[in-house]
Amino acid sequence: MADLLVGVVVGSDSDLPVIQGACEMLEQLGIAYEVVIASAHRTPEKAAEYARSAAERGLLAIIAAAGGAAHLPGVLAAYTHLPVIGVPVQTGALNGVDALYSIVQMPAGVPVAAVAINGAKNAALLAARIISIADPSVREKLIQYKMELASGVEAKAARLAQLGVAGYLAAQK
Amino acid sequence: MADLLVGVVVGSDSDLPVIQGACEMLEQLGIAYEVVIASAHRTPEKAAEYARSAAERGLLAIIAAAGGAAHLPGVLAAYTHLPVIGVPVQTGALNGVDALYSIVQMPAGVPVAAVAINGAKNAALLAARIISIADPSVREKLIQYKMELASGVEAKAARLAQLGVAGYLAAQK
Amino acid sequence: MADLLVGVVVGSDSDLPVIQGACEMLEQLGIAYEVVIASAHRTPEKAAEYARSAAERGLLAIIAAAGGAAHLPGVLAAYTHLPVIGVPVQTGALNGVDALYSIVQMPAGVPVAAVAINGAKNAALLAARIISIADPSVREKLIQYKMELASGVEAKAARLAQLGVAGYLAAQK
Amino acid sequence: MADLLVGVVVGSDSDLPVIQGACEMLEQLGIAYEVVIASAHRTPEKAAEYARSAAERGLLAIIAAAGGAAHLPGVLAAYTHLPVIGVPVQTGALNGVDALYSIVQMPAGVPVAAVAINGAKNAALLAARIISIADPSVREKLIQYKMELASGVEAKAARLAQLGVAGYLAAQK
Amino acid sequence: MADLLVGVVVGSDSDLPVIQGACEMLEQLGIAYEVVIASAHRTPEKAAEYARSAAERGLLAIIAAAGGAAHLPGVLAAYTHLPVIGVPVQTGALNGVDALYSIVQMPAGVPVAAVAINGAKNAALLAARIISIADPSVREKLIQYKMELASGVEAKAARLAQLGVAGYLAAQK
Amino acid sequence: MADLLVGVVVGSDSDLPVIQGACEMLEQLGIAYEVVIASAHRTPEKAAEYARSAAERGLLAIIAAAGGAAHLPGVLAAYTHLPVIGVPVQTGALNGVDALYSIVQMPAGVPVAAVAINGAKNAALLAARIISIADPSVREKLIQYKMELASGVEAKAARLAQLGVAGYLAAQK
Amino acid sequence: MADLLVGVVVGSDSDLPVIQGACEMLEQLGIAYEVVIASAHRTPEKAAEYARSAAERGLLAIIAAAGGAAHLPGVLAAYTHLPVIGVPVQTGALNGVDALYSIVQMPAGVPVAAVAINGAKNAALLAARIISIADPSVREKLIQYKMELASGVEAKAARLAQLGVAGYLAAQK
Amino acid sequence: MADLLVGVVVGSDSDLPVIQGACEMLEQLGIAYEVVIASAHRTPEKAAEYARSAAERGLLAIIAAAGGAAHLPGVLAAYTHLPVIGVPVQTGALNGVDALYSIVQMPAGVPVAAVAINGAKNAALLAARIISIADPSVREKLIQYKMELASGVEAKAARLAQLGVAGYLAAQK
Repeated sequence: MADLLVGVVVGSDSDLPVIQGACEMLEQLGIAYEVVIASAHRTPEKAAEYARSAAERGLLAIIAAAGGAAHLPGVLAAYTHLPVIGVPVQTGALNGVDALYSIVQMPAGVPVAAVAINGAKNAALLAARIISIADPSVREKLIQYKMELASGVEAKAARLAQLGVAGYLAAQK
Repeated sequence: MADLLVGVVVGSDSDLPVIQGACEMLEQLGIAYEVVIASAHRTPEKAAEYARSAAERGLLAIIAAAGGAAHLPGVLAAYTHLPVIGVPVQTGALNGVDALYSIVQMPAGVPVAAVAINGAKNAALLAARIISIADPSVREKLIQYKMELASGVEAKAARLAQLGVAGYLAAQK
Repeated sequence: MADLLVGVVVGSDSDLPVIQGACEMLEQLGIAYEVVIASAHRTPEKAAEYARSAAERGLLAIIAAAGGAAHLPGVLAAYTHLPVIGVPVQTGALNGVDALYSIVQMPAGVPVAAVAINGAKNAALLAARIISIADPSVREKLIQYKMELASGVEAKAARLAQLGVAGYLAAQK
Repeated sequence: MADLLVGVVVGSDSDLPVIQGACEMLEQLGIAYEVVIASAHRTPEKAAEYARSAAERGLLAIIAAAGGAAHLPGVLAAYTHLPVIGVPVQTGALNGVDALYSIVQMPAGVPVAAVAINGAKNAALLAARIISIADPSVREKLIQYKMELASGVEAKAARLAQLGVAGYLAAQK
Repeated sequence: MADLLVGVVVGSDSDLPVIQGACEMLEQLGIAYEVVIASAHRTPEKAAEYARSAAERGLLAIIAAAGGAAHLPGVLAAYTHLPVIGVPVQTGALNGVDALYSIVQMPAGVPVAAVAINGAKNAALLAARIISIADPSVREKLIQYKMELASGVEAKAARLAQLGVAGYLAAQK
Repeated sequence: MADLLVGVVVGSDSDLPVIQGACEMLEQLGIAYEVVIASAHRTPEKAAEYARSAAERGLLAIIAAAGGAAHLPGVLAAYTHLPVIGVPVQTGALNGVDALYSIVQMPAGVPVAAVAINGAKNAALLAARIISIADPSVREKLIQYKMELASGVEAKAARLAQLGVAGYLAAQK
Repeated sequence: MADLLVGVVVGSDSDLPVIQGACEMLEQLGIAYEVVIASAHRTPEKAAEYARSAAERGLLAIIAAAGGAAHLPGVLAAYTHLPVIGVPVQTGALNGVDALYSIVQMPAGVPVAAVAINGAKNAALLAARIISIADPSVREKLIQYKMELASGVEAKAARLAQLGVAGYLAAQK
Repeated sequence: MADLLVGVVVGSDSDLPVIQGACEMLEQLGIAYEVVIASAHRTPEKAAEYARSAAERGLLAIIAAAGGAAHLPGVLAAYTHLPVIGVPVQTGALNGVDALYSIVQMPAGVPVAAVAINGAKNAALLAARIISIADPSVREKLIQYKMELASGVEAKAARLAQLGVAGYLAAQK
């Protein structure tokens, strides 16, 4: 069985639907991961302990998703030297801008790698790019994934050339 | 000597000039306080310990100032049941909006009381309003302060009535 | 019967659904409260009188919710020395950002404690943290509430460990 | 001596420099005015009383300038049926956006007429447009002012046609 | 039949639903008005002509609603000396913030009175406040309207005192 | 058959519904166009090649629609000297503001012509205005289109004059 | 002497310094232009007339710079079928965001091509790209300009490779 | 001599002062790097080639700084499977918010790791965290750096405890 390489952390089970995109991508790339709930505010000691022990447990990267004040990625980054990827979650009146600012504007000394609001899939791909520098099998999968991305676009382009815009859209319904 | 009632926390010494307004206001109201540096990201265990022990050390409220990602007030609030007042600091490219969002948009369960960006003086006054519900001497000082606020406005209004706008402004130079 | 400790004020009955979260939380914590409608713009004298008499009526804190220009919390704070907690309501084209700015950016001298947009539950918890410095029974309830928050997260975490993300989400439907 | 027609209100003497543009414009249009300091938060009763008595004192319009939470125009509008013109003042970290939102987003029932951030001159011109519907002499002055505006632009256009951009800018230094 | 006093202008029939709130309010206050469609961009000469002739046709104020770039109120104000009230319409991706900025940030010399995004009702009330300085019957209606506003709040407050929050909300359904 | 004059490029088939407005407008103006899918990030070489060869293939303008980071218009502009028109697409948490900023804030040296968020119809009209400087038949169609725009407004204005606001809106349902 | 091809319009002489970047670029590309002052609000008839007659005077494109409400580009576009390029000027409290929104969010039917805030140089380059579709000499100059842009970057890159970051920056002082 | 591990790319020499913070941090951590100028818009082929060959040249991570439209990090990420870290540069009217949005809001499939506006130091630390998963010597240096961060805070805290706020600030001057 593959070693556990990525820890995916959410502060609340309401963020699980967002994080699913990361889980599916990690599976597609063959990267073993775990998903845990640990809140920076409601279970701060557990969150701290998770980050503190992550490296010695063999994790290579942490993905943390959070909305609103979104302190979770920064709090985890404070307790580990692993790369921490933060996913701002679109929630509440500010639509995720609050989470984006809170995740990306970390003070000098303790970095968090921010991806797009609700960008869980890219968080997984960024984790894969990171792991690929140490793991050739992940690198191969990433290179293959990039080719599939391109060929997916090409296939759609060909279909559009054949059907035209109206035909293409009609066929989607 | 008066009991220590308010803990003023900054994550970096660069926030000390902002917090001075709180210190002066607390002194004017006769409320004993301490100022400490404890970073949510660089010394997270120290920050946690400060909040965890604050109530038993007799503190009644905590004021925390932070800029950028500004996790400090929320992290402190996670480790104490005391009221925590957050002062967003105007710094960097986002001018304090990042800090405001990060401080005010706390998730349900763990409140922080946000004041204006750079609003350290009002943080002190809010702490005083809080303490006043338990301490009649602070209540008296607050009531007196409110009267002085009003009479200060009245004095300026009278001066303006006498000098006119141009005269008033000329006399300020 | 418990003494009335918290006044919850809305400027319009359209804000009542938002404020319900505060009412439920106050009840859970055993804090007696009242809810009143008093508009800063349509019944300004009533709002002023409510705040002016709040302390002598025994209230220890005021929670005021408002959307749009959201002057209510600041207007109440102008007429009392009690701590006033402002809840920005998410309404209209600006989604509550207008209310947040209007509530949190109070001028020096008259503080309002802002919580998150629609953060009525946290307004109640902040009121409880304030009252707890004068009332040991509220302090006990708050400490217990914090433990329940943590154990609620732990229960979900255990359930997630058992079911996995897909299973957890499927079971929610 | 001309009847007093416009009341110009600021909540703080720090707003006097902004309001000067309104005073000069009112003088140029021959509209008698007074300037008073009355704070919505520090002297709320005085502000209320000013608005309440404004109509019977013969005022036809009120101009109120405020920064930050900027409750003053709305509070005045709550106590009078006169048209109230609000000038958001550019101050603090939010640069006047807070004041703009707080002034313009008034709830249905109590209108305030917002002008641009720091737009005191236009506040005076708006007051003049209002008064002009009842006062033919002000109407004449406004029409003349509009012609002067146009001829001022024409003079600059002619000068630019003569000097070219570089010459025009060089001559300004 | 009453003289026509207010011109209500929209640039597109898609803005008619928003402007209905102004029409109803003007009718309630007994102020005669007309509604016209004239676009600043698609029929600029018509819009210019409407504003140019408004005063001599006896109008006392113009209300103009517009979304997006929202040039209509400013364009009208350029061609008349009457007070022009601008209503930013909430439409498109920017939710009316574009319209608000475009309406309120007019350059010095040509004022527009901005009300809240979608604030058509207040535009009518502002027009009424303006007209009231020349028309005692409108002043009487406005004073009465203000009293009704207050008594409406009082009635709801009394109902809330009787039913409680839960009961009040249940009765609304 | 007419020469191909405009290339319409989208980075993803999810942007096709937005771009339909451009296609319909181009057809109405008799301007031949093609629609292609080429992603700045997933098929960057194809996008580069498309722009590099556009001029020699006879295209006179390129319209590119993109959401989120929205690099496509700028990347195309880097590889061609043709005018490139960028359409920010309203998608995701930031509602198209991200795409607008990314498209409009191009560095000095490489311009992109930005239109409104989701403004595909205007992108087509802008392309037509551009082509009209070289093609009298397009100029004629544009002049005719402008007259139709005006007469469309006039027809609605006449209908409104006849039906009134309530009648007009009722007839739309 | 070269035919006049581009009209550069500003509403106020305070925008002349911004527009200088456009003038210099147009000169470098050998495109004849004129600069005029015509205000959408203070001289609306002149602005309308300028746009109305631009095509018959032989102009191929109009560049208009404006700050604040920034109605000028849209007003010009309403009176001509030529391509109009709008330059939002950074001025006042909103730093040009108001001007950007007002220029770019034009309603369907009347396009304006927006460039970056203060992006006058790119406005000139966009005008050149437009004119290049009808004028081979401008096309040649644009292609040459693009090559110079690239070689300018290459020269800096070579210098950096030689001096290192510290040396490069030191040599700049 | 140490292998080259990190490529630092700027699109313009005006971004070199910002990127210096990254260079100094990389040096402090003993990570060999190079700095190159390659513009996504002015030398797009060079930028593409740099990214395309980066992995085979042995680089493990790319740091790219850009302001305004800030397409550089995304363009580089399109041509490589290495982790790309984007540094939004604070420049121009939008103060870096444009660059932040353009860097962080990348579409699914091609991730960029965004750090704070002007956060070059954290970009270097994030690169170090990434490299540390493959290089134990970097891991050791990172762990040591984290300890130094903490002890730096402790030293300041001790100094503050000794001098008080006023004394501390006075000593800084």
